[in-house]
Amino acid sequence: MTHDSPSNPETVTAALLVIGEEILSGRTKDANTAYIAAYLTRVGISLREVRVVADVEDEIAAAVNALRARYTYVFTTGGIGPTHDDVTTDAIAKAFGVGVDIRDDAVEAMRLQYTEEDLTPARLRMARIPDGAALIHNAVSRAPGYMLENVIVMAGVPRIMQVMMDEVVPRLAKGRPMSARTVRVDAAEGDVAPPLAALQAAHPDVQMGSYPFFEHRRFGTYVVLRGTDDARLDSALADLWDVIATEGFSASAGDGS
Amino acid sequence: MTHDSPSNPETVTAALLVIGEEILSGRTKDANTAYIAAYLTRVGISLREVRVVADVEDEIAAAVNALRARYTYVFTTGGIGPTHDDVTTDAIAKAFGVGVDIRDDAVEAMRLQYTEEDLTPARLRMARIPDGAALIHNAVSRAPGYMLENVIVMAGVPRIMQVMMDEVVPRLAKGRPMSARTVRVDAAEGDVAPPLAALQAAHPDVQMGSYPFFEHRRFGTYVVLRGTDDARLDSALADLWDVIATEGFSASAGDGS
Repeated sequence: MTHDSPSNPETVTAALLVIGEEILSGRTKDANTAYIAAYLTRVGISLREVRVVADVEDEIAAAVNALRARYTYVFTTGGIGPTHDDVTTDAIAKAFGVGVDIRDDAVEAMRLQYTEEDLTPARLRMARIPDGAALIHNAVSRAPGYMLENVIVMAGVPRIMQVMMDEVVPRLAKGRPMSARTVRVDAAEGDVAPPLAALQAAHPDVQMGSYPFFEHRRFGTYVVLRGTDDARLDSALADLWDVIATEGFSASAGDGS
Repeated sequence: MTHDSPSNPETVTAALLVIGEEILSGRTKDANTAYIAAYLTRVGISLREVRVVADVEDEIAAAVNALRARYTYVFTTGGIGPTHDDVTTDAIAKAFGVGVDIRDDAVEAMRLQYTEEDLTPARLRMARIPDGAALIHNAVSRAPGYMLENVIVMAGVPRIMQVMMDEVVPRLAKGRPMSARTVRVDAAEGDVAPPLAALQAAHPDVQMGSYPFFEHRRFGTYVVLRGTDDARLDSALADLWDVIATEGFSASAGDGS
């Protein structure tokens, strides 16, 4: 439902790997994908693929290797907790073919949260870091995430993932951020599609998407214009409003959210 | 964070492929994954993997071919609308190496919704069906989904996807549905992990998961027991409550949702 992206020589891409049986069973709604997608878009990193897999070492390792070869960065969430079924760290070490052990700087970070007595063998599993990784600080609960080459390993608990994003994103390369303009059109996508295709042809440097919705037993279409140049976006938006007037559509600015 | 699944000779597996740039840009929160995950779990189909990709024909075709070889069923959502950028149907035809054309029975279904005048070339794109596919009825807006071998192609608009699920699931093979019992434990996952591992060893036919949460500046853990036999689940649940009493944890039944 999205028109061709304008080419961008500065594109920095990413994939997200969500690790967790609880998402696949429907027990937990994954809120991390939407958060990370919006965050990366805002800073100029283009999220191109998401995968959700269970807590199975070989599955995780295979997905990491497929994704890290393809995208500038791979973010992972989940599976770095204290139970023996949190296998993400072993999967990362396997994917890179490196060793993994408890690391002193990770234990030091955890001492800010835990007494010596609380540093049980289960919790010390959270200080196991693959060889060569750089730690990602976690101000919430101290057990760190880490970055190994272009793979960024974060917790699955949303509040902890969020502080890890704040910590790691300043270290990353970014492209030009995309801005967006949204118009809600009270007409079916099938009626919006032909004039929108013509508008797209006139503005090849602006990405135009149409997203149908169904509310109160009626169909409508959100039209979203995206691009890295605000002036060009606003020019396309002005032409979109002209099209809406010509077609006689009812419409309003914004996505209502 | 989930212990090993009990082996189930009747396991029917699935993957979900979500197609849509709007999810990757963070504009739209994907609600379909949670709905489909819970639905499949309820009917006895085990969702093992989810992927989200953009509306790019080769990406979709490659993902479909990777997933359909691995799982009993592959569900897709999105990219079957009226615009020329809805490329899912062409991607499915390419993945299977079959032709694709406007099909009379699909057009007939659409006549229930559209007048002849409304059946524009854009809308007739929605009647293009890959050769050999069986239609999936859509009572909401009539443009059909379809099933080709083990791949089930559905709309991305949630209300339409939902009626397509109701329509197609009765045609599918199912395993024994999993039931679940959830206990909220007001203790950190690092403290819950050791006794839970012992409990898991005593109940190998029940899948035990621990899911940490962070609320009001405190950590807690949801313990979820899942299995296909209610009596064995209840036996494991009784033993879990004994463990909680022995450890002196505060806890309550249910997941609070």
